[in-house]
Amino acid sequence: MSLRVVARIKARAETVSEVRELLSSLVEPTRKEFGCITYELLQNTEDPTDFTFVEEWETDEALASHAASDHIEAIGPRLRPVVVDAPDIRTYLLVK
Amino acid sequence: MSLRVVARIKARAETVSEVRELLSSLVEPTRKEFGCITYELLQNTEDPTDFTFVEEWETDEALASHAASDHIEAIGPRLRPVVVDAPDIRTYLLVK
Repeated sequence: MSLRVVARIKARAETVSEVRELLSSLVEPTRKEFGCITYELLQNTEDPTDFTFVEEWETDEALASHAASDHIEAIGPRLRPVVVDAPDIRTYLLVK
Repeated sequence: MSLRVVARIKARAETVSEVRELLSSLVEPTRKEFGCITYELLQNTEDPTDFTFVEEWETDEALASHAASDHIEAIGPRLRPVVVDAPDIRTYLLVK
């Protein structure tokens, strides 16, 4: 069964545009990764500092490979100064 | 543009099976609603008390109609005693 991920990233009020650009830059390279079924970046309609990735991966290995990818590794040091707290990344299985 | 929803529901440790059944019962009637594109129930792989709906709706009106539907209205009083806190329901637009 495929794995689902919901990852929340909270920008600072003054860094929303920068965070949006940084997170957007992950979408195309991630969608090209082996085993990526869905990778969508969402922004909260009531709180523009609240970003969420909704993801689907074919296997654990594909998700682990994504987490270790060059584009994810490279974004960490650029995101840390402009976000609030660490990202809230949770992995799920489909119930129904 | 369609609307996305991520809704988190936290069961008590002793009510996971009951919450899973209650939430699962929403899936079929909701998918039949007008304007429902996606409605999926997920369960956290590391924390079985952590449930999430990932949803996509064609319009604001379709989402409002869902929130006022008989099956959502009816589930409230059955869920409240078996969950921790109110559901965390957030609405999003796709960035990319």
